[in-house]
Amino acid sequence: MSEDLVYPGGKLRLFVDAALGQGARAIPGDRQTHYLLHVMRSKIGDRLSLFNGRDGEWSATVVEVSKRQCVLECRGQVAPQSDVPDLWLVFAPIKRTPADYVVQKATELGVRRLQPVITRRTIVHRVNGERMRANALEAAEQSGRLTVPDIAEPVPFARLLSEWPHGRRIVFCDEGGDARPIAEALRDQPSGPWAVVTGPEGGFDPGERAALRALPHVTPVSLGVRILRADTAALAALAVWQACIGEG
Amino acid sequence: MSEDLVYPGGKLRLFVDAALGQGARAIPGDRQTHYLLHVMRSKIGDRLSLFNGRDGEWSATVVEVSKRQCVLECRGQVAPQSDVPDLWLVFAPIKRTPADYVVQKATELGVRRLQPVITRRTIVHRVNGERMRANALEAAEQSGRLTVPDIAEPVPFARLLSEWPHGRRIVFCDEGGDARPIAEALRDQPSGPWAVVTGPEGGFDPGERAALRALPHVTPVSLGVRILRADTAALAALAVWQACIGEG
Repeated sequence: MSEDLVYPGGKLRLFVDAALGQGARAIPGDRQTHYLLHVMRSKIGDRLSLFNGRDGEWSATVVEVSKRQCVLECRGQVAPQSDVPDLWLVFAPIKRTPADYVVQKATELGVRRLQPVITRRTIVHRVNGERMRANALEAAEQSGRLTVPDIAEPVPFARLLSEWPHGRRIVFCDEGGDARPIAEALRDQPSGPWAVVTGPEGGFDPGERAALRALPHVTPVSLGVRILRADTAALAALAVWQACIGEG
Repeated sequence: MSEDLVYPGGKLRLFVDAALGQGARAIPGDRQTHYLLHVMRSKIGDRLSLFNGRDGEWSATVVEVSKRQCVLECRGQVAPQSDVPDLWLVFAPIKRTPADYVVQKATELGVRRLQPVITRRTIVHRVNGERMRANALEAAEQSGRLTVPDIAEPVPFARLLSEWPHGRRIVFCDEGGDARPIAEALRDQPSGPWAVVTGPEGGFDPGERAALRALPHVTPVSLGVRILRADTAALAALAVWQACIGEG
């Protein structure tokens, strides 16, 4: 957790693994404990919010503080459990800083799963799943989400397609030139399970592009006349999908 | 220019100040010269593209190389001059890394002007205009734009409003809770001069919010139920504006 972090909502929220309920206690993880003790200088009685992805959001207070540990206790539920729309982001891994950024922004923009895919033109093959999960967790805490997005293991492109779940529609950010503008292409499309699929810098190769377009329920879209970096394309498509089909 | 830069379009494009025309010569700036000589190891006869914001895009070749300088010569115009839609981004300055990111992404997303505004809750008051201009120029080179966005001097919020240009509509990213979802709010709005206006972390204060909403042609919009960081809100609003009103 960045020490200079300003919580956009002005409220400290932590994700914990423990079950949450009236009087339930939770011990935050190492990163969170460091933040509570050494950045926030938390004292007994301080208030914060907790969520665990299952039990809704709870107001809690600090009930024990030692040199190395805080104990938090739930006081009351402030929101029932809810989830983001069923939207995945499938993206080709990119170098570290943009990948960190994509994970953070996709989490804020309400993605349920991040799925790295290895394509022929993918330059970065190593994916630091632990780092991605830490970024997603922190962004979920700050964005007010009640779930942390699932960070899937990277899969080769062919396997992604052969195992593609039945009925999950695709917004394909297609640099091929004949795709319709995204707002027009998404107009009057149904909600339900969707994925935004973006390629690496340089795009999908022609065989991959054809295979992707041959899947059922694929909507190729154009994001405009300019050339977008891979991370920009992903975030622009997610924002437009949320505006047109998601929560608006 | 980052040395590890992958040009998304696979083509080297440089912005120069010189007039461009058949046989015209241009000497790139220091940053560009360093890139040509020491990263690309350019030789006489190498091809690239040039633009200057006025004369369209030209294919050019390297005609002289010395230890410290390259000379480029225009061979033919490959695109006439064009501009992005008349969209500004008005934003409260944020700490360095997100600001760099906002400038880069806003340039890719086709903003004509970036206008920093100092609000009551703005935490970062110092704005490095030179750094912003360098980021905008580099992003313009890479995105295929034929113009570099104008980086305006920061203005206090009151002056921004008192000098607001007649007829320029505003998409106001409003955290106040009663704004309509952005796609619905922008539906059937006219094109023409627009600005996306986003506040600092923590939002505009109530007086600023009321003053902004009292301007003519202001459309308050909601970006969904989650709390977005200031930089995410700016980019999401720009992407949706381009999809719904801009170039699609």
